Amino acid sequence: MLKWLFSLLIGVAGVAAAFRAPVGGVLFALEEVTSWWRSHLMWRVFFTSAVVAVVVRSAMNWCKSGKCGHFGSGGFIIWDISGGQEDYSYQELLPMAIIGVIGGLLGALFNQLTLYITKWRRTYLHKKGKRVKIFEACLISLVTSTISFVLPLMRKCSSCPQLETNSGIECPRPPGTDGNFVNFYCSKDNEYNDLATIFFNTQDDAIRNLFSAKTFHEYSAQSLITFLVMFYSLAVVTFGTAVPAGQFVPGIMIGSTYGRLVGMFVVKFYKKLNVEEGTYALLGAASFLGGSMRMTVSLCVIMVEITNNLKLLPLIMLVLLISKAVGDFFNEGLYEVQAQLRGIPLLDSRPKQVMRNMSAKDACKNQKVVSLPRVSRIVDIISVLRSNKHNGFPVVDRGQNGESLVIGLILRSHLLVLLQSKVDFQNSPFPCGPGILNRHNTSDFVKPASSKGKSIDDIHLTEDELGLYLDLAPFLNPSPYIVPEDMSLAKVYNLFRQLGLRHIFVVPRPSRVVGLITRQDLLLEENGNNVTTELQSTSEFAHVNTFSFFLTGITGKPQT
Amino acid sequence: MLKWLFSLLIGVAGVAAAFRAPVGGVLFALEEVTSWWRSHLMWRVFFTSAVVAVVVRSAMNWCKSGKCGHFGSGGFIIWDISGGQEDYSYQELLPMAIIGVIGGLLGALFNQLTLYITKWRRTYLHKKGKRVKIFEACLISLVTSTISFVLPLMRKCSSCPQLETNSGIECPRPPGTDGNFVNFYCSKDNEYNDLATIFFNTQDDAIRNLFSAKTFHEYSAQSLITFLVMFYSLAVVTFGTAVPAGQFVPGIMIGSTYGRLVGMFVVKFYKKLNVEEGTYALLGAASFLGGSMRMTVSLCVIMVEITNNLKLLPLIMLVLLISKAVGDFFNEGLYEVQAQLRGIPLLDSRPKQVMRNMSAKDACKNQKVVSLPRVSRIVDIISVLRSNKHNGFPVVDRGQNGESLVIGLILRSHLLVLLQSKVDFQNSPFPCGPGILNRHNTSDFVKPASSKGKSIDDIHLTEDELGLYLDLAPFLNPSPYIVPEDMSLAKVYNLFRQLGLRHIFVVPRPSRVVGLITRQDLLLEENGNNVTTELQSTSEFAHVNTFSFFLTGITGKPQT
Repeated sequence: MLKWLFSLLIGVAGVAAAFRAPVGGVLFALEEVTSWWRSHLMWRVFFTSAVVAVVVRSAMNWCKSGKCGHFGSGGFIIWDISGGQEDYSYQELLPMAIIGVIGGLLGALFNQLTLYITKWRRTYLHKKGKRVKIFEACLISLVTSTISFVLPLMRKCSSCPQLETNSGIECPRPPGTDGNFVNFYCSKDNEYNDLATIFFNTQDDAIRNLFSAKTFHEYSAQSLITFLVMFYSLAVVTFGTAVPAGQFVPGIMIGSTYGRLVGMFVVKFYKKLNVEEGTYALLGAASFLGGSMRMTVSLCVIMVEITNNLKLLPLIMLVLLISKAVGDFFNEGLYEVQAQLRGIPLLDSRPKQVMRNMSAKDACKNQKVVSLPRVSRIVDIISVLRSNKHNGFPVVDRGQNGESLVIGLILRSHLLVLLQSKVDFQNSPFPCGPGILNRHNTSDFVKPASSKGKSIDDIHLTEDELGLYLDLAPFLNPSPYIVPEDMSLAKVYNLFRQLGLRHIFVVPRPSRVVGLITRQDLLLEENGNNVTTELQSTSEFAHVNTFSFFLTGITGKPQT
Repeated sequence: MLKWLFSLLIGVAGVAAAFRAPVGGVLFALEEVTSWWRSHLMWRVFFTSAVVAVVVRSAMNWCKSGKCGHFGSGGFIIWDISGGQEDYSYQELLPMAIIGVIGGLLGALFNQLTLYITKWRRTYLHKKGKRVKIFEACLISLVTSTISFVLPLMRKCSSCPQLETNSGIECPRPPGTDGNFVNFYCSKDNEYNDLATIFFNTQDDAIRNLFSAKTFHEYSAQSLITFLVMFYSLAVVTFGTAVPAGQFVPGIMIGSTYGRLVGMFVVKFYKKLNVEEGTYALLGAASFLGGSMRMTVSLCVIMVEITNNLKLLPLIMLVLLISKAVGDFFNEGLYEVQAQLRGIPLLDSRPKQVMRNMSAKDACKNQKVVSLPRVSRIVDIISVLRSNKHNGFPVVDRGQNGESLVIGLILRSHLLVLLQSKVDFQNSPFPCGPGILNRHNTSDFVKPASSKGKSIDDIHLTEDELGLYLDLAPFLNPSPYIVPEDMSLAKVYNLFRQLGLRHIFVVPRPSRVVGLITRQDLLLEENGNNVTTELQSTSEFAHVNTFSFFLTGITGKPQT
C-alpha cells in the first residue's frame, strides 16, 4: 500500500516536473494510473504536485542566469503559444473535427501495432537473453540516426522567409545555437532545410517551431509527410524496447506534424480567415495523444499547461472528444493494452456485458476451493501449496457447537514466510494461545520490492519439521469480503474494482440476517446522535437503485 | 440513478457555462459533488462540458456585435489578467503564505457561522411558514441596499490617478457606463469614490478591478477593510436564505478584498520588487474559496480558467494547500457541513477512527431486524411498516430441505407501491408463478422527483384486502451485498462509500466457502483465456494488503 502510494506520488511528481504541468500531473494520476481512487488520495497527490511546482519554479528562477545549461531555458511554460490564434470561426470546426478523426485512427493504429510488436518481441526476441535487448537498442539508434541524416540530405533547401527583426529568430540560425531554420548543407547563406529543421533540433525546439504562429509557411507538405511517416514508424518500432523514448513527446511530435499539415490546407482553403498553422499543430498533438492514450480531462489540462493558450480550450476538448470516441471504436487505450499484455490484473472500469448474466458461482466453477484447517500439519500445507497456484486459501475451524465455520483467509505469500521462518511450528495439534504475533514484525510479511516473492521451491524442511503443526489463526485475515453464490458477477466485479480487492469468498446464501446496516447507522456512529435523519430523502445520494438494476437484469437470477 | 446523473450533468454544464470554465466544471463535479465516482462518468461529464464550452464560445462570438446585452461582454475568460505579474521572488512567498492562512481562518469561520445561523433559521424561523422566508429575503435586500448606499457616502472622495490614454479606463467613468472609478456624489469632476467603485458595479466588474494590475493604488486600506467587514457579514447572513446570492462569486469578492489589502502592504514593504496588488487579490480569492469549500484541484483549474494567468499556477496551488490545511484544522468544508445539517447521508471519505475497533454487528445492535416471509399477509406487511421506520427488509423463505434462507431485500418504497396498486394481491398463501412482473412498469417504482415519497398513511385498504397475500419474490433485490457479523466497521464503511450502497446485510460467519474469486478469474472471464497470468506480480495493483490491515487492527477481532 505504502509502496504503491510512493510510486504514485513519484509518478505525479515526474509529470509535474517534466512537463511543468502540476495540475495535469494530478489529473493524469487520477485518470490513467489508478484503477482505484479514494478522495483523500487527491489531497496527497495535490500536495506533492504543489511542492514540485513551487520548487521547479524557484529552481528555474535561480537558473535564469544560465548556470544550469538547458534546464529552465524554456520558461515555466514549455511551449508557450499564448500570443497565437485566439479566435476561430464556424468553418474551422470541420477541419478540426477531421484532425480529431485522424488522431483517433492513427492512435488506435499505434496501439494495435505496438501491441503486435510487443507480443512478437516478448515471444521470440527477449527470451534469448539480455544481450538481445542491448543489440536491439543499438540497432534502433543506428537506424534512427541514419534516417535522420539521410532524409534531410535528399530535400532541397528553401530560401529564408522575411522575418521581423525583433522576433528573435534568425534564418538560418547561427552555428552552435538552438532554435529554428537549420542550414543543413545548403549552398547559399540565406537558405534553410525544412526537414533538417525538424530533425536537427531538440524535440522541445521542434515542437515549439511546429506550434509557433511565427513560422508561417516554414514547412513544405512534402517534408511534413516524410517526417510523419518516418517518425510514426520509428515510434512504433521503438516502443517497448530498452530505448527510453517516452510516449508523450513523440506523441506530440507525430500529432503536431499532421496537425500542421491539415493547417496548411486550411490556410490555403479558407484564405479570408485568420488561420494559423501552429494552432492546428497543437490540436493535432492533442488528438493523437487522445486517440492513443484515451484520456480526456488530464490531457486537456496538460495541453493548456504546456502551451498557455487557454482560449483554445474548447477546441482541444472538441478534438479530444472526437479522437477518443474514434479510437474507442477500434481498441482500448495504450496503457490498458500494454497492461493486459503484461498480465497486470487491471480491471476495466465497467464489467463486460456477459458478466451480467453470470453468477459469482459461475466464475469459480473451474477451480476447486482448497481449504486449510485452523491448525494444519506442515506436510499438508506443503502439499496444498504444491498442488495448485492459488494465492489465498480459506481457513476453516469448528465452531462451539461442532459445526464448521470459515474463520478467514490466509495468503500463499504469508504461508511461505511462516514456513521459512519456522518459529511458529508447534508439536500440539491444538490452537495456541494469544500473543504469538510478537514473534513477527510486519516487515517480515512484506514482499521485497525487487523480487518476485518467495516460491514453494525455496522452502527446505526436515522430515521432523514436516510432522509439526502450525496454528494459522493469528496470521489470517479474519473477515475478507464475501458474496452470496448467486450474486451477479457484474456486482462482484464492481466490488473488486471499487475496493481494489484481490480475493473474495463466494459463500452459500445465508440462512438468516443478523442485522441490517444503512447509511444512517454509519452516520450515527460517526456523529453521535445529532443527525436529523430524513430517511426518505436518501435516494439522490445512494446511487445503486437496486430495483432498477433488478429490472434490467443486472442482479442475477431472482428466486422464483 | 438516471435522475442523479442528469442532475450531475446539469451541474457541470452550469459551472462550465457560468464561469466559462469547462474543465473546472468537470473537476468540480469530480471533487465536490459526488461521493461516488466511476471512471466512465468522467467521459460523460467531459462530453457535456465540451459541448457547453463549444456552444458558449460560439454564442459569444455571435453576440460580439452587442446583440445580446451584457452576455459575452467579458470574453471567454471572465477576469482576464494574463497581462499582469508573471514572476515572483522568494520574499513574496511569506505574504502569500499569510494570505493562505487568512483564507483558511476566514473560510473556517464562514462555515461555522453559516452552520449556526442555518441551524437557528431552520429551528426557529422557517417553521413559521413560507411568508417568513419572503419577509426575510426582503429584509436582507433592504439592509444590503441601505448599507451599500450609506457607507460610500461616508467616505471622502479621492482625486483621479494619472491613467494611460490607451488603457480604455476613464476616471471618473462617464455616467451610464460600467467599469471603474465611480464618481459618487463627489464634488469635483476629477474625483472618484473608491468604496462606491466596489459597491456600484456589477460584481463581475468589481472583481475585475480588484484583480487588475492597471488599477494601482486605486483603493485605500480603509475602504477595503470597511467593505470586507460589511460584505463578509452580509454573506454570512444571506447564506441559506431565499436570496440566490451564490457562494462562488461572493467568495471571490471577499477573498480578493483581503488579498488586495495584503498586496498593498507588500507593495509598501518590498519597494524594490515588481509586485502588483491584483496578483494578491487573485491569490486571496483562491485562498478564501479553498478555506471554505476545501477543494484543491478543481479550484486551481477554475482559477486559471477564469483569469487566464497560468504562470501564477504554482502560487495558487501553494495558497490553496495552506488554506485547506488551516481550514481542515477547524471544521469540515462548506458543502459537507451543510449536507450534514440537512440530514443528507453523505459519507466522509474515510471512516472514523472509532470504527476500526467496532464490528459490523455493533453498528446494528440498536435495532431488531424485521424480516418478512416470501409470501406475506397484507395485514402483516402493514403492521411491519407501521412498527418501524426501516427502509429495507430482508425476505426469508424455506429452502429445499426446510431450512430458512434469506432470499433478498425488499425496499419500503417498493412495498408501498405494491400495497397502493393492489394488482399483485392474491388469495393463496403460496408463491405465484413467474411472469408477474409484466403487470408493472419500471416507472411505477421510481420516486417522483418532486415528492418526498409515499408514506404508509397514504395506503387505504379494505378489511377484505388486508386478509390477502402478496408474493414478494419478483420485487426484491435477490442479492444485496453481505458482510460477516465480525467484520470491522471500517471495512463495511468503505464498502458503503465506494459502492454507493444504501443497505447491507450483516450475516453470521459462513460455514463453508463455495468458491474463491480472484482478479485473474475476472480477467479470464473478460478476455477469454489469453491473459498471461503472472500471479506474483499482482500486489501493486491490489491495494488492500489484508495482512497489514490486520496487524494494525483495522479488521476487527481475530478469532483466537
